[in-house]
Amino acid sequence: MLITLDPSLHKPLYVQIHDQLRERIISGALAAGDRLEPTRELAKRLGVHRTTVSNAYADLHAEGLIQGTVGRGTFVSPLAAELLTSGPPRRRPINDFYWDSFFPPDSQDDSLSRLMASASEPGMISFAATHGSPELSPVDLVRRALDAALRREGAKLLQYGSSDGYPPLKRYLQARLERDGIAVDLDELLITSGCQQSLDLLHRTLVAPGDVVVCENPTYTGRWHVFESPGIRLLGVPVGAEGMDLDSLEALLSQNKVKLILASPTFQNPTGRTMPLAARQRLLELATRAQVPIAEDDIYGALRYRGRELPPLKALDTSGLVIHLNSFSKVGFAGLRVGYVVASRRVIERLREAKQQADLHTNLLGQAVLEEFGRRGWLDKLIRRAKYLYSHKLDVLCRSAEQFLHSVAKWDIPEGGMSIWVELPAGLDAGELLVKARDRGVIFAPARYFYFQNPHHNAFRLCFTTPTDEQIEKGVRILGELLKEEISKLPPGRKPAPAGSGVALV
Amino acid sequence: MLITLDPSLHKPLYVQIHDQLRERIISGALAAGDRLEPTRELAKRLGVHRTTVSNAYADLHAEGLIQGTVGRGTFVSPLAAELLTSGPPRRRPINDFYWDSFFPPDSQDDSLSRLMASASEPGMISFAATHGSPELSPVDLVRRALDAALRREGAKLLQYGSSDGYPPLKRYLQARLERDGIAVDLDELLITSGCQQSLDLLHRTLVAPGDVVVCENPTYTGRWHVFESPGIRLLGVPVGAEGMDLDSLEALLSQNKVKLILASPTFQNPTGRTMPLAARQRLLELATRAQVPIAEDDIYGALRYRGRELPPLKALDTSGLVIHLNSFSKVGFAGLRVGYVVASRRVIERLREAKQQADLHTNLLGQAVLEEFGRRGWLDKLIRRAKYLYSHKLDVLCRSAEQFLHSVAKWDIPEGGMSIWVELPAGLDAGELLVKARDRGVIFAPARYFYFQNPHHNAFRLCFTTPTDEQIEKGVRILGELLKEEISKLPPGRKPAPAGSGVALV
Repeated sequence: MLITLDPSLHKPLYVQIHDQLRERIISGALAAGDRLEPTRELAKRLGVHRTTVSNAYADLHAEGLIQGTVGRGTFVSPLAAELLTSGPPRRRPINDFYWDSFFPPDSQDDSLSRLMASASEPGMISFAATHGSPELSPVDLVRRALDAALRREGAKLLQYGSSDGYPPLKRYLQARLERDGIAVDLDELLITSGCQQSLDLLHRTLVAPGDVVVCENPTYTGRWHVFESPGIRLLGVPVGAEGMDLDSLEALLSQNKVKLILASPTFQNPTGRTMPLAARQRLLELATRAQVPIAEDDIYGALRYRGRELPPLKALDTSGLVIHLNSFSKVGFAGLRVGYVVASRRVIERLREAKQQADLHTNLLGQAVLEEFGRRGWLDKLIRRAKYLYSHKLDVLCRSAEQFLHSVAKWDIPEGGMSIWVELPAGLDAGELLVKARDRGVIFAPARYFYFQNPHHNAFRLCFTTPTDEQIEKGVRILGELLKEEISKLPPGRKPAPAGSGVALV
Repeated sequence: MLITLDPSLHKPLYVQIHDQLRERIISGALAAGDRLEPTRELAKRLGVHRTTVSNAYADLHAEGLIQGTVGRGTFVSPLAAELLTSGPPRRRPINDFYWDSFFPPDSQDDSLSRLMASASEPGMISFAATHGSPELSPVDLVRRALDAALRREGAKLLQYGSSDGYPPLKRYLQARLERDGIAVDLDELLITSGCQQSLDLLHRTLVAPGDVVVCENPTYTGRWHVFESPGIRLLGVPVGAEGMDLDSLEALLSQNKVKLILASPTFQNPTGRTMPLAARQRLLELATRAQVPIAEDDIYGALRYRGRELPPLKALDTSGLVIHLNSFSKVGFAGLRVGYVVASRRVIERLREAKQQADLHTNLLGQAVLEEFGRRGWLDKLIRRAKYLYSHKLDVLCRSAEQFLHSVAKWDIPEGGMSIWVELPAGLDAGELLVKARDRGVIFAPARYFYFQNPHHNAFRLCFTTPTDEQIEKGVRILGELLKEEISKLPPGRKPAPAGSGVALV
């Protein structure tokens, strides 16, 4: 199809495309049944955005001149000639084709998410998600806490609340943070609907098209999904034995005007790695020198089972550049959707405005539950229980891995968090393994899921908090058998030397 | 300051500005204490975005070469010369100036919001917000509902849930919607964290920079705040006695490629107007002809006190273009932050993806409360109670207005909703009145708050659901006295003829 676009005309490009195609149908150059060029190809050839072509096609479709469906192609309608000679254009009911002009086909591969969603199938052993253990769920205490909170000020909890957060919860968190070495004023603290929303609010307020954002690679999938938006350049920093690789970060900072660093210094998801104190101090120094704020995700921070407690970046922050994100979702309260952000007053102001636009405020029942738990001392007890239980489960996982994976994989033992990171011999693809493992009743999260750049394929994350002890042992045994079978199919040079635990991976 | 920018250089513009200013400080052309041009002016003169200049200044500031604060101006630092000759640039702790490069000063006037926030002051009579009455708050039933839900499946409610919504609530809503004439499949229904989030998700998924969105003007403030984003052209349609003016809409649709129509056909906020059936049908016809989706906000739909029930647009929608937004926030459940969207499957898919990025999922306690209320028949009872109570309060307000406002204002009596719209004589500014009314213990929402274009000043919204009967009478009496005083100060030609209720305003 010969179509010529003139950007200098006061006529939108999609209308120019539409009009020229319509002309060709009128002239008979395009006849009933003729196939139109696919939108993607035509857009590429004309050097325009695909939506522009889709809009033109949608208009022709609405006029009844063309028809077709996604996948099959688009054709000149058998009735086109008739329609063109019989009065005003006809309008048809909207179909999926119509919405294509709004939603270009999604290029994102969500087959992994679908596989991991098998977790709810009966009998499935799931190492896939960093969910809490049902054994830990504080249902009875939540019932008591809600009952007390509703008796005390139920009408207030059912009414609209403040975008800033439920004041009693803010005061409780302020005291708790001070205990943990983070002294904040109340206007430096914002309640959000969980850490995912905190990330989304940061994205909305701190970055704009053209900005560069630096993030660990691999990282939590929900994090890079938020920041991988049009016009943002997301640059990855490799994760080593001591967390985010700081030499790489320093190089990135010197070569780019970076707007924001996303960091998970403690039990980084998915690798489980933790930055030692000296690394934390160097990270802060690099960020301060480059004057780049750091968004610190500390969602696993409370779940330390061994080793020395380390201060969050925010507790070491003298420059005011650290934005601290946290929640209690990993210690039994995921369903409440309550989290918080600690940052400079100016940052909190903007986040609060964005929060008001996003969802007015965080649900008040969830905030009231947390405040009751905190004030009554139940929160700390719950965290102690979680640490005790998860520490035990990590031991079970490590023993099982020693027994069934020692000759076929490498991993290191994290000091906390909810998962271990298992590295496989080169040549194995954890995504393909997942398909086979699922057939045997075991699922996990393959490495590819966590990389926004240079994906590694031969690794996966095993989350140990949801399966029972027996499921952990059985699941790891099945994985070990599967890995042995798969490795036996590899060419001889690829086969791994026996490894075992405690091996640094990077 | 003579600064020349060369966009063809491989050097960011802000670095070019920074370097040239630094050179001028080194050369002495700019000496200690010299004032720098304000960022806004320099940006304008150079034809660059203000952020570009702010970034350059932020770097100079970080190096200690300039200093200053918002409002006072920016000056060459007394130590600048010394710093430039004494080794590497100094770095200082971050201050508010630093964050200016992220957050250009907010031009939005929030003085109205601050005034309306006086609602919580003791003794204040507030007609300002469309909040529910505390008399209605179903606290005891919520306690029972939560207790039952937690006993039944508490562990599930505290765990992560689905971005799609809590399945039992979805099934309940499906049945309820069918009863109300809206037959939907489950994949045409999405649970959100309230109508504000629904609007935000629509903004994220349906519109992109360059798009035109049409909306009633005046409208709910939180709606235009969401859609008034960079690159979106938000066009206003006046609101007449029959709601959105459809002749204006038709003209807008013919002159623009419109991406989305935002409509509130029932008890429009702030005017209280409702589109009759014929207008609804014409709106659908216009939208279908132009192939533009309509986002229908039906949040007040359940609160009808008189007149004939009208179907929501979605119940009349044969084209699939209507996206229906709703919640139970106006019948006693605002604090739960739960709402829902009904739309074509393709639209719901995208909204669900955006939802997952925004906050993973809606809090489960709130969803469980609503499901229990629905299943037990309590929701309909609660809505009946709300209608009874609010109908009574509307009567009280109308009687008070007849008594105290009949000679100084016009209004019409809505058939439902939470507020009336009061029009004042030309020359009066409801924003200025609010300041004086507040001093006498009464607040309301002035017209200006609801207009994103061509603001009207001589009108305000009185919400009747939160004050007691006595407060309504007293508040309206105070407003009447104040209005009489203010009108007596107007030049003679401006004084209004006696009016009264039932007068169409547009």
